[in-house]
Amino acid sequence: MRTVEWDYERHLVKMIDQRQLPSIFEIAEFSDYNDVAMSIREMYIRGAPAIGAAAGFGMALAAQQSGARDRETLLRDLEAAAEVLQATRPTAVNLFWGIQRALRVATGEEIEHVDDIRQAILQEAQRLADEDVEINKQMARNGAALVKEGDTILHHCNTGSLATVDWGTALGVIRMANEQGKNIQVLLDETRPRLQGARLSAWECVQYNIPFTLIADNAAGHYMRTGQVNIVFVGSDRTAANGDVANKIGTYKLGVVAKENGIPFFPVVPTSTVDLSLPTGDDIPIEERDGSEVTDVTLFGRPIAPVGVRIGNPAFDVTPYRYVTGIVTEHSVVYPPYDINLRRAVEEEQAKIQIKQTR
Amino acid sequence: MRTVEWDYERHLVKMIDQRQLPSIFEIAEFSDYNDVAMSIREMYIRGAPAIGAAAGFGMALAAQQSGARDRETLLRDLEAAAEVLQATRPTAVNLFWGIQRALRVATGEEIEHVDDIRQAILQEAQRLADEDVEINKQMARNGAALVKEGDTILHHCNTGSLATVDWGTALGVIRMANEQGKNIQVLLDETRPRLQGARLSAWECVQYNIPFTLIADNAAGHYMRTGQVNIVFVGSDRTAANGDVANKIGTYKLGVVAKENGIPFFPVVPTSTVDLSLPTGDDIPIEERDGSEVTDVTLFGRPIAPVGVRIGNPAFDVTPYRYVTGIVTEHSVVYPPYDINLRRAVEEEQAKIQIKQTR
Repeated sequence: MRTVEWDYERHLVKMIDQRQLPSIFEIAEFSDYNDVAMSIREMYIRGAPAIGAAAGFGMALAAQQSGARDRETLLRDLEAAAEVLQATRPTAVNLFWGIQRALRVATGEEIEHVDDIRQAILQEAQRLADEDVEINKQMARNGAALVKEGDTILHHCNTGSLATVDWGTALGVIRMANEQGKNIQVLLDETRPRLQGARLSAWECVQYNIPFTLIADNAAGHYMRTGQVNIVFVGSDRTAANGDVANKIGTYKLGVVAKENGIPFFPVVPTSTVDLSLPTGDDIPIEERDGSEVTDVTLFGRPIAPVGVRIGNPAFDVTPYRYVTGIVTEHSVVYPPYDINLRRAVEEEQAKIQIKQTR
Repeated sequence: MRTVEWDYERHLVKMIDQRQLPSIFEIAEFSDYNDVAMSIREMYIRGAPAIGAAAGFGMALAAQQSGARDRETLLRDLEAAAEVLQATRPTAVNLFWGIQRALRVATGEEIEHVDDIRQAILQEAQRLADEDVEINKQMARNGAALVKEGDTILHHCNTGSLATVDWGTALGVIRMANEQGKNIQVLLDETRPRLQGARLSAWECVQYNIPFTLIADNAAGHYMRTGQVNIVFVGSDRTAANGDVANKIGTYKLGVVAKENGIPFFPVVPTSTVDLSLPTGDDIPIEERDGSEVTDVTLFGRPIAPVGVRIGNPAFDVTPYRYVTGIVTEHSVVYPPYDINLRRAVEEEQAKIQIKQTR
């Protein structure tokens, strides 16, 4: 199954509960958009594109839940739902993109009957989800062309099927390169504090028969300095107009150390993750999550820190564009100057979507 | 009590079992040097200076255990013990230093009777331990002079009392600056995989009332880039003649990112940790430890990675001298060119020890 999908028989949202992986594979089902919001906040589902799709289906649920008999009332209910869904996580821009696409359908004048609007919102959410898979495969092809025979690829966090509707972004590139028989090796950062690399990317690599070695995040510098890494692929939760990349905490250190060692550093970023309204990454809000995420692991069954100490837990960081070799999008691999080339790529992709919708 | 000490009534070595902190404070006792070797390998005790002292006391145990009635037989037993102790961990040079000082006493011609040699080896081990505390306090004074009022200090791993016989190296500097009323704040890297920052440094900071925030290692870059770190202090397990610093895995990334952000980066290194026989850090052996250290933590009581995956677990990395602002030693704060200035500091300190011994 996909990471998140609509159940057309039972009219509800299904998603893999990623908190339980790799030990337990469990499907969560939600018929209330408030629960979808909870699932995003509590990280049943994470990864910018997956969050975007979940938000889209959350809006479809909100439309279904609303008892409105006229467009105005339905719109009011949808806007209330949008507020709840938007408040879950501040950094990934896809969340807002998923919500906005639903609202745009609802405010469009073409559809009159509220039941037709409900139907159109679900169709739009489904379209967004389907597009995500296609976009990821296109990015994977674009990115895999950067991988050479025998490369060792460093990867941070989880950017695979589980971070998207299906296929993945950075891990999708890796999967494609592996399927192309490029004889790659992958170094997976475990990615503290939530350990998405150890729990999710390792699990996905096992599924796809990608040869990998799991490492503590601290070890990545050693492998880079000693010539054991050829290229770095990471994801992004929001990328600013100038090419500054917000991504999972720890990405910034990788970007700096990659550049220092002459190792190409490529974020893999669907254009839906680019926020042209933000001139630089300094404007991207960085989510501070609860300290328990750091202290909730145990070593030999015992707590890893004294009880009650102060914890700092920023969930993302910003890698300034000067460390970014290129940005892999579904449009192309975009190179500097990003303020010009990234904008062009995004606008050309948005035009394609509008052309499709008009048809 | 000290991290490691000799029990003069019961003729055995006592040490804090650091694997159990911060949950349980337990003292381990050893009357067999083979068990001391085990305790170093299994990390009951860790930290280069503490390992050096433990090795010295291990040699004293070996002398005590030996049934030798002549110097030659005793020497043979001591050399066998030295081999066992040396094989425990390859990176920290203090281990070899502690063993060599014991052997030097045993091979010296001044003492004739084997019981007097046994006594002299114990005295030498005790002297090494006592010196460590004095050296650390001197380093702390030298290093604290670099700290400004209100500074936020970033720290990696554990370099406090627990990493030494007492007082500590980098954390000793921080403790001194705090006691001097400099109104400091400390960011503690949790330091995966063994979590010495979370388990040991946080515990020590609580004891000494040092205000601190514990962070995942991945977050350090974010704090540095956003201007929230003024200075970095780390320890070292071995420093080469050119100033290349081997230290706990993850230090290298900190050094690179500190330099990139113009943040002073100071290893705190007793001259006993400097290995003038090695021209560069490329000659320092990097210990690869068992992968279970990475996977032995659990999240919500569940394993953090699929079972049986390949793990890379280098325990140390090398930070090349060009990232090192200065090296805090007991002699002085040594600045580049290290190949000249570090050698001078080490040789002047070694001369002092020889003068003391001659007296």
